[in-house]
Amino acid sequence: MSAEITTFESTPIAATAEQMDAVTFNEDGLVPAIVQEEHTGRVLMMAWMNADSLRETMATGRTWFWSRSRKEYWCKGETSGDRQYIREAYYDCDGDTLLFVVEQEGNGACHTGEYSCFYRSFGPQKDVGVGVGSV
Amino acid sequence: MSAEITTFESTPIAATAEQMDAVTFNEDGLVPAIVQEEHTGRVLMMAWMNADSLRETMATGRTWFWSRSRKEYWCKGETSGDRQYIREAYYDCDGDTLLFVVEQEGNGACHTGEYSCFYRSFGPQKDVGVGVGSV
Repeated sequence: MSAEITTFESTPIAATAEQMDAVTFNEDGLVPAIVQEEHTGRVLMMAWMNADSLRETMATGRTWFWSRSRKEYWCKGETSGDRQYIREAYYDCDGDTLLFVVEQEGNGACHTGEYSCFYRSFGPQKDVGVGVGSV
Repeated sequence: MSAEITTFESTPIAATAEQMDAVTFNEDGLVPAIVQEEHTGRVLMMAWMNADSLRETMATGRTWFWSRSRKEYWCKGETSGDRQYIREAYYDCDGDTLLFVVEQEGNGACHTGEYSCFYRSFGPQKDVGVGVGSV
Protein backbone atom coordinates (compact mmCIF):
# COMPACT_ATOMS: atom_id res chain seq x y z
CA MET A 1 0.00 0.00 0.00
CA SER A 2 1.43 3.32 -1.00
CA ALA A 3 2.13 5.87 1.69
CA GLU A 4 0.50 8.40 -0.62
CA ILE A 5 -2.94 6.91 -0.12
CA THR A 6 -5.07 8.56 2.53
CA THR A 7 -8.73 8.57 3.36
CA PHE A 8 -8.66 12.08 4.82
CA GLU A 9 -8.76 15.44 3.10
CA SER A 10 -6.96 18.57 4.22
CA THR A 11 -9.16 21.59 4.76
CA PRO A 12 -7.43 24.95 5.21
CA ILE A 13 -8.79 27.12 8.02
CA ALA A 14 -9.82 30.58 6.78
CA ALA A 15 -8.66 32.44 9.89
CA THR A 16 -9.20 36.18 9.75
CA ALA A 17 -6.46 38.72 10.47
CA GLU A 18 -8.36 39.70 13.61
CA GLN A 19 -8.42 36.11 14.84
CA MET A 20 -4.72 35.61 14.11
CA ASP A 21 -3.91 38.89 15.88
CA ALA A 22 -5.72 37.65 18.98
CA VAL A 23 -3.06 34.96 19.47
CA THR A 24 -0.44 35.86 22.07
CA PHE A 25 2.98 34.25 21.84
CA ASN A 26 5.24 33.87 24.87
CA GLU A 27 8.69 35.43 25.30
CA ASP A 28 10.10 32.66 23.07
CA GLY A 29 7.56 33.41 20.36
CA LEU A 30 5.62 30.22 21.04
CA VAL A 31 2.05 29.27 21.90
CA PRO A 32 0.91 25.88 23.24
CA ALA A 33 -1.42 23.93 20.98
CA ILE A 34 -3.64 21.18 22.36
CA VAL A 35 -4.71 18.53 19.87
CA GLN A 36 -8.00 16.74 20.47
CA GLU A 37 -9.50 13.96 18.36
CA GLU A 38 -12.79 14.62 16.65
CA HIS A 39 -15.67 12.28 17.48
CA THR A 40 -13.92 10.64 20.48
CA GLY A 41 -12.98 13.89 22.24
CA ARG A 42 -9.72 12.28 23.29
CA VAL A 43 -6.85 14.66 24.05
CA LEU A 44 -3.99 13.37 21.92
CA MET A 45 -1.04 15.67 22.54
CA MET A 46 0.21 19.16 23.25
CA ALA A 47 3.00 20.82 21.31
CA TRP A 48 4.21 24.32 20.49
CA MET A 49 3.65 26.57 17.51
CA ASN A 50 5.33 29.80 16.51
CA ALA A 51 3.75 32.38 14.22
CA ASP A 52 5.06 30.70 11.07
CA SER A 53 3.96 27.20 12.03
CA LEU A 54 0.53 28.54 13.04
CA ARG A 55 0.14 30.19 9.63
CA GLU A 56 1.27 26.98 7.92
CA THR A 57 -1.20 25.02 10.05
CA MET A 58 -4.06 27.26 8.93
CA ALA A 59 -2.96 27.25 5.28
CA THR A 60 -2.57 23.49 5.02
CA GLY A 61 -5.21 22.22 7.44
CA ARG A 62 -2.51 20.01 8.98
CA THR A 63 -0.73 20.49 12.30
CA TRP A 64 2.67 22.17 12.09
CA PHE A 65 4.74 22.67 15.22
CA TRP A 66 8.03 24.17 16.32
CA SER A 67 10.40 21.76 18.00
CA ARG A 68 12.08 23.56 20.88
CA SER A 69 14.75 20.85 21.22
CA ARG A 70 15.56 20.41 17.54
CA LYS A 71 14.80 24.05 16.69
CA GLU A 72 12.95 23.14 13.54
CA TYR A 73 9.47 22.99 12.06
CA TRP A 74 7.74 19.68 11.90
CA CYS A 75 4.49 18.59 10.38
CA LYS A 76 2.81 15.92 12.48
CA GLY A 77 2.86 12.61 10.64
CA GLU A 78 5.08 13.72 7.78
CA THR A 79 7.60 11.03 8.71
CA SER A 80 5.38 8.51 10.49
CA GLY A 81 2.33 8.86 8.26
CA ASP A 82 0.21 9.49 11.35
CA ARG A 83 -1.11 12.81 10.08
CA GLN A 84 -3.61 15.15 11.72
CA TYR A 85 -6.34 16.80 9.64
CA ILE A 86 -7.82 19.84 11.32
CA ARG A 87 -11.61 20.08 11.52
CA GLU A 88 -11.99 22.86 14.12
CA ALA A 89 -9.57 25.35 15.64
CA TYR A 90 -10.05 27.50 18.75
CA TYR A 91 -8.15 30.10 20.74
CA ASP A 92 -8.75 30.65 24.42
CA CYS A 93 -9.96 33.66 26.40
CA ASP A 94 -6.43 35.02 26.83
CA GLY A 95 -5.38 34.08 23.30
CA ASP A 96 -2.39 32.25 24.73
CA THR A 97 -3.47 28.65 24.19
CA LEU A 98 -4.82 26.98 21.05
CA LEU A 99 -7.05 23.95 20.60
CA PHE A 100 -7.17 21.94 17.39
CA VAL A 101 -9.82 19.30 16.80
CA VAL A 102 -8.48 16.80 14.29
CA GLU A 103 -9.02 13.58 12.48
CA GLN A 104 -6.03 11.48 13.47
CA GLU A 105 -4.67 9.21 10.77
CA GLY A 106 -2.77 5.98 11.27
CA ASN A 107 -1.43 4.76 14.60
CA GLY A 108 -2.07 7.86 16.64
CA ALA A 109 -0.29 10.92 17.91
CA CYS A 110 2.48 9.68 20.19
CA HIS A 111 6.00 8.88 19.09
CA THR A 112 6.04 6.00 21.59
CA GLY A 113 3.44 4.14 19.57
CA GLU A 114 0.63 4.95 22.01
CA TYR A 115 -2.43 6.53 20.45
CA SER A 116 -2.43 9.51 22.83
CA CYS A 117 0.59 11.03 24.53
CA PHE A 118 -1.43 10.99 27.77
CA TYR A 119 -1.27 7.23 28.23
CA ARG A 120 -0.01 7.25 31.83
CA SER A 121 -2.31 8.06 34.72
CA PHE A 122 -1.45 9.25 38.18
CA GLY A 123 -2.61 7.03 41.00
CA PRO A 124 -3.41 3.33 40.99
CA GLN A 125 -3.04 1.97 37.48
CA LYS A 126 -6.23 1.17 35.70
CA ASP A 127 -6.53 -0.24 32.22
CA VAL A 128 -5.89 3.17 30.76
CA GLY A 129 -4.07 4.92 28.00
CA VAL A 130 -7.43 5.99 26.90
CA GLY A 131 -8.75 9.10 28.62
CA VAL A 132 -12.24 10.33 28.15
CA GLY A 133 -12.28 9.35 24.51
CA SER A 134 -12.65 5.69 25.30
CA VAL A 135 -16.05 6.17 26.90
CA MET B 1 -28.65 28.52 49.14
CA SER B 2 -25.37 28.29 50.99
CA ALA B 3 -22.17 28.43 49.00
CA GLU B 4 -21.05 25.50 51.10
CA ILE B 5 -23.46 23.14 49.46
CA THR B 6 -22.08 21.07 46.64
CA THR B 7 -23.17 17.95 44.84
CA PHE B 8 -19.59 16.85 44.11
CA GLU B 9 -17.05 15.09 46.28
CA SER B 10 -13.30 15.67 46.26
CA THR B 11 -11.22 12.58 45.70
CA PRO B 12 -7.48 12.87 46.33
CA ILE B 13 -5.24 11.27 43.69
CA ALA B 14 -2.83 8.76 45.20
CA ALA B 15 0.06 9.60 42.89
CA THR B 16 3.22 7.59 43.54
CA ALA B 17 6.65 9.17 44.03
CA GLU B 18 7.70 7.62 40.72
CA GLN B 19 4.77 9.24 38.91
CA MET B 20 5.44 12.62 40.48
CA ASP B 21 9.14 12.35 39.60
CA ALA B 22 8.18 11.77 35.97
CA VAL B 23 6.83 15.32 35.74
CA THR B 24 9.24 17.78 34.14
CA PHE B 25 8.93 21.46 34.97
CA ASN B 26 10.18 24.18 32.64
CA GLU B 27 12.88 26.73 33.43
CA ASP B 28 10.30 28.72 35.41
CA GLY B 29 9.37 25.66 37.45
CA LEU B 30 6.00 25.30 35.73
CA VAL B 31 4.14 22.63 33.80
CA PRO B 32 1.04 23.21 31.63
CA ALA B 33 -2.12 21.48 32.80
CA ILE B 34 -4.99 20.83 30.42
CA VAL B 35 -8.42 20.48 32.04
CA GLN B 36 -11.03 18.36 30.29
CA GLU B 37 -14.59 17.75 31.38
CA GLU B 38 -15.60 14.22 32.25
CA HIS B 39 -18.50 12.73 30.26
CA THR B 40 -18.57 15.48 27.62
CA GLY B 41 -14.85 15.34 26.76
CA ARG B 42 -14.87 19.08 26.37
CA VAL B 43 -11.54 20.85 26.82
CA LEU B 44 -12.27 23.57 29.38
CA MET B 45 -9.01 25.41 29.97
CA MET B 46 -5.24 25.26 30.23
CA ALA B 47 -3.29 26.76 33.10
CA TRP B 48 0.06 26.30 34.82
CA MET B 49 1.09 24.37 37.90
CA ASN B 50 4.32 24.41 39.86
CA ALA B 51 5.50 21.56 42.07
CA ASP B 52 3.60 22.85 45.09
CA SER B 53 0.32 23.41 43.28
CA LEU B 54 0.61 19.99 41.66
CA ARG B 55 1.06 18.37 45.07
CA GLU B 56 -1.90 20.36 46.42
CA THR B 57 -3.97 19.29 43.41
CA MET B 58 -3.23 15.62 44.11
CA ALA B 59 -3.82 15.99 47.85
CA THR B 60 -7.15 17.79 47.54
CA GLY B 61 -8.56 16.36 44.31
CA ARG B 62 -9.21 19.94 43.19
CA THR B 63 -7.27 21.94 40.59
CA TRP B 64 -4.64 24.28 42.00
CA PHE B 65 -2.64 26.51 39.66
CA TRP B 66 0.13 29.04 39.75
CA SER B 67 -0.75 32.44 38.35
CA ARG B 68 2.21 33.75 36.39
CA SER B 69 0.80 37.27 36.29
CA ARG B 70 -0.30 37.53 39.93
CA LYS B 71 2.49 35.25 41.18
CA GLU B 72 0.19 33.39 43.51
CA TYR B 73 -1.55 30.06 43.96
CA TRP B 74 -5.16 29.82 43.07
CA CYS B 75 -7.68 27.06 43.45
CA LYS B 76 -10.10 26.99 40.57
CA GLY B 77 -13.56 28.02 41.72
CA GLU B 78 -12.54 29.07 45.22
CA THR B 79 -13.82 32.58 44.51
CA SER B 80 -16.41 31.91 41.81
CA GLY B 81 -17.73 28.64 43.18
CA ASP B 82 -17.09 27.02 39.80
CA ARG B 83 -14.90 24.27 41.23
CA GLN B 84 -13.24 21.39 39.44
CA TYR B 85 -13.25 17.91 40.99
CA ILE B 86 -10.58 15.66 39.53
CA ARG B 87 -11.64 12.20 38.40
CA GLU B 88 -8.59 11.19 36.32
CA ALA B 89 -5.09 12.64 35.95
CA TYR B 90 -2.50 11.91 33.27
CA TYR B 91 1.04 12.95 32.33
CA ASP B 92 2.29 12.81 28.78
CA CYS B 93 5.10 10.88 27.11
CA ASP B 94 7.67 13.58 27.89
CA GLY B 95 6.25 14.29 31.34
CA ASP B 96 6.02 17.95 30.46
CA THR B 97 2.27 18.33 30.05
CA LEU B 98 -0.54 17.22 32.38
CA LEU B 99 -4.17 16.35 31.68
CA PHE B 100 -6.87 16.48 34.34
CA VAL B 101 -10.32 15.05 33.72
CA VAL B 102 -12.76 16.81 36.02
CA GLU B 103 -16.32 17.31 37.02
CA GLN B 104 -16.93 21.00 36.50
CA GLU B 105 -19.20 22.65 39.00
CA GLY B 106 -21.30 25.75 38.47
CA ASN B 107 -21.07 28.01 35.46
CA GLY B 108 -17.95 26.56 33.90
CA ALA B 109 -14.24 27.15 33.71
CA CYS B 110 -13.78 30.55 32.05
CA HIS B 111 -13.56 33.84 33.91
CA THR B 112 -15.48 35.47 31.03
CA GLY B 113 -18.60 33.52 31.92
CA GLU B 114 -18.22 31.11 29.02
CA TYR B 115 -18.28 27.45 29.97
CA SER B 116 -14.96 26.68 28.22
CA CYS B 117 -12.07 29.09 27.69
CA PHE B 118 -11.96 27.86 24.09
CA TYR B 119 -15.15 29.60 23.00
CA ARG B 120 -13.76 31.36 19.94
CA SER B 121 -13.06 29.47 16.74
CA PHE B 122 -10.78 30.38 13.89
CA GLY B 123 -12.42 30.72 10.50
CA PRO B 124 -16.01 31.50 9.64
CA GLN B 125 -18.06 31.76 12.84
CA LYS B 126 -20.37 28.90 13.52
CA ASP B 127 -22.66 28.56 16.48
CA VAL B 128 -19.74 27.53 18.62
CA GLY B 129 -18.25 27.95 22.04
CA VAL B 130 -18.78 24.31 22.41
CA GLY B 131 -15.95 22.19 21.03
CA VAL B 132 -16.17 18.48 20.72
CA GLY B 133 -18.01 18.12 23.98
CA SER B 134 -21.25 19.38 22.55
CA VAL B 135 -21.63 16.45 20.20
